[in-house]
Amino acid sequence: MYHPNDPQIKSWLTIPEGSDFPIQNLPFGIFRTDTKKARAGVAIGEYILDLHMLQKGGFLEELKLPDKIFRQPSLNAFFALGRKKVGKVRKEISKFLNEACDKGTIKFIRKRALVPMEEAELLMPIEVGDYTDFYSSEDHARNVGTMFRDPENALLPNWKHLPVGYHGRASSIVVSGTPLHRPLGQTKAPDAEAPSFGPSKRLDFELEVAFITCRETRLGERISTGEAEDHIIGLVLFNDWSARDIQVWEYVPLGPFLAKNFGSSISPWVVTLDALEPFKVEGPTQDPEPLDYLKYEGKHHYDINLEVALSTDTLEETTICRSNYKYMYWNMAQQLAHQTVNGCNIRVGDLYASGTISGPKKDSYGSMLELSWKGTKPLKLSDGSTRTFIEDGDVVTMRGFAEKGGVRIGFGEVVTRILPARE
Amino acid sequence: MYHPNDPQIKSWLTIPEGSDFPIQNLPFGIFRTDTKKARAGVAIGEYILDLHMLQKGGFLEELKLPDKIFRQPSLNAFFALGRKKVGKVRKEISKFLNEACDKGTIKFIRKRALVPMEEAELLMPIEVGDYTDFYSSEDHARNVGTMFRDPENALLPNWKHLPVGYHGRASSIVVSGTPLHRPLGQTKAPDAEAPSFGPSKRLDFELEVAFITCRETRLGERISTGEAEDHIIGLVLFNDWSARDIQVWEYVPLGPFLAKNFGSSISPWVVTLDALEPFKVEGPTQDPEPLDYLKYEGKHHYDINLEVALSTDTLEETTICRSNYKYMYWNMAQQLAHQTVNGCNIRVGDLYASGTISGPKKDSYGSMLELSWKGTKPLKLSDGSTRTFIEDGDVVTMRGFAEKGGVRIGFGEVVTRILPARE
Repeated sequence: MYHPNDPQIKSWLTIPEGSDFPIQNLPFGIFRTDTKKARAGVAIGEYILDLHMLQKGGFLEELKLPDKIFRQPSLNAFFALGRKKVGKVRKEISKFLNEACDKGTIKFIRKRALVPMEEAELLMPIEVGDYTDFYSSEDHARNVGTMFRDPENALLPNWKHLPVGYHGRASSIVVSGTPLHRPLGQTKAPDAEAPSFGPSKRLDFELEVAFITCRETRLGERISTGEAEDHIIGLVLFNDWSARDIQVWEYVPLGPFLAKNFGSSISPWVVTLDALEPFKVEGPTQDPEPLDYLKYEGKHHYDINLEVALSTDTLEETTICRSNYKYMYWNMAQQLAHQTVNGCNIRVGDLYASGTISGPKKDSYGSMLELSWKGTKPLKLSDGSTRTFIEDGDVVTMRGFAEKGGVRIGFGEVVTRILPARE
Repeated sequence: MYHPNDPQIKSWLTIPEGSDFPIQNLPFGIFRTDTKKARAGVAIGEYILDLHMLQKGGFLEELKLPDKIFRQPSLNAFFALGRKKVGKVRKEISKFLNEACDKGTIKFIRKRALVPMEEAELLMPIEVGDYTDFYSSEDHARNVGTMFRDPENALLPNWKHLPVGYHGRASSIVVSGTPLHRPLGQTKAPDAEAPSFGPSKRLDFELEVAFITCRETRLGERISTGEAEDHIIGLVLFNDWSARDIQVWEYVPLGPFLAKNFGSSISPWVVTLDALEPFKVEGPTQDPEPLDYLKYEGKHHYDINLEVALSTDTLEETTICRSNYKYMYWNMAQQLAHQTVNGCNIRVGDLYASGTISGPKKDSYGSMLELSWKGTKPLKLSDGSTRTFIEDGDVVTMRGFAEKGGVRIGFGEVVTRILPARE
């Protein structure tokens, strides 16, 4: 039986050593070029396979896909076909890119359906329905609690009983490469009498992974932890930009608002859960035992290496964080079960972010807040300069990849340049 | 000059005494019937004027509207034409419904474009982009702060400096008439050792008004208080259903989540700010003076009476709250200026809810939490029974209307029946 995850399969296309996009990955995205309007594609090595051309060429006919399903500005309609169908498409594409593929097909693809990635503009892969941000890394929650509250009781009483989450802004989620202006806002220094207005002085990234849903539920319907992954098509990297000084003043009692909604950045390629299947690992033992609806069977954590690098026009890239998605206390099956336990309905293209993913070591913390310990321990960069929070002109790049047995399933990057505030 | 708000104008259609929908109102909505697919209409007395039929009949040609702009399942595309254009459409419709209208037009409308409201199903008027919930009534914030925190310092330090708000769930916003199941969730009694799972025991409504935006802004763009109302097309009533016991356990530190996202109910007719223009009033003096970006000129508060009634299959309706939209401390111009001061982008069809609107008197509190003072003072209903929170089978009806000089601009109702939890 042909399996697209088989480490042995090879493509007729040359895949550079260490590429995020070998034939075992095949993530989906939306792109355009000077001559091609927005459409769906699959990343393969340094190229994009144009799925619309493939369908137009008649190569996907056996799959009985809706007409022009790939000739759309988002993957929502495609993902709405469900995880099983999308998996079949991925398998078929794998066969077309396999070295065993017939010459006629290869010739067609080479001539009509292959676009060098560097010539394409990668667009938002989905139209985001609702966006939830969880807070599910224990090390992150513990670090923040230690800094801002009580080191002896760093985790709040609810934290180990439920995956704390809150709603975020969908409109301002942008794709990698979109620069963001430093936000303006209200802040109040602890010793100031009144708040003042100006550019945030504590701009920060948050290293997160987000999952995307592919199945609509009705209001009142629940999704169990066992069913959850049938509703999830794949993952992207997520940079949840945060203005710490705005947040600390505004967030009581209803949570973060303007500190977050000026922009969040995602990576352009949706890496399918199917491709990540070989990287499933056990999660941590949960103590106290969660309530029944949050219990789960099997493995729902994923071993995905995550990195954050910082650079400027004149400063060479410095990797400032190395973390891993497996550090999550609450996994995505639990998150989706929690999100829907009250009957909240899910749409195709919803985005559910993990919350900052910090590991146990100091260089695995997923935000400047933690890396510089609230600004008290400046980070050293490659040229000897230091950072406590993000400065104008800084470029933050997040990367992610799973690797095992010679196969690397990568996410590509989410890159954001911070521009000065617009006064 | 013909003005659709003129109290003197009359329709050729009989408008029942006390109707919410006289010719001076003309709110927009989406409806369907057994024979007509979803389309836009205007409420007039006990009828709906079918705007698609009007356009098809060639009556709106001078307005140069896009083809089939009213033959859509939401008003988003129509509202995106902007407040000025929508105002012109409203004026034109007013002329068609005016007693001075020519007989041919009246005959056409009577025969082809008038649908008895009781024969129509009213649908969601908009496809909601993002949904924000503010917390802008001082009496409400003070009541909640008194109950849960410190009566001496009921308002948190930030409350008078910024319109506190948070993001809510867009997917679960439903139109009046949609029943909701009591949510299941985690709660923890103060004296319990661990949380437990089950139906919420403290289900509550929140009386709110929401505004709808009609103009897209780019990420990074700001809207000043002076420009804000050009971006707002109109208002609906908003019932922000809340499960108090779920909320109190989950909400630290990131705000309400499952306590709110199981459903929020809106009224089906979008009452335009144009129609509400005569009801503008001064707001309260703001002390301390807000920061510059929150200062405003002119009147941005609206005198709109609001009521909440409770009934069951066997219990006659009891009005349990009489409040007014004018009680807001922060008005919608300030709310929208705040929402965008950091560059957060706005979409057409976004919904911005006021937060619970409580007045100074005990019968003007906009939630059961306040009316029954955290359950300690049960409310008497028409049959002598009592309520602290909402019970299964309860029907909560919110109504709103502005009235002056013999003209009543009404919102209709938002009605929700609470069904038992789905176990």
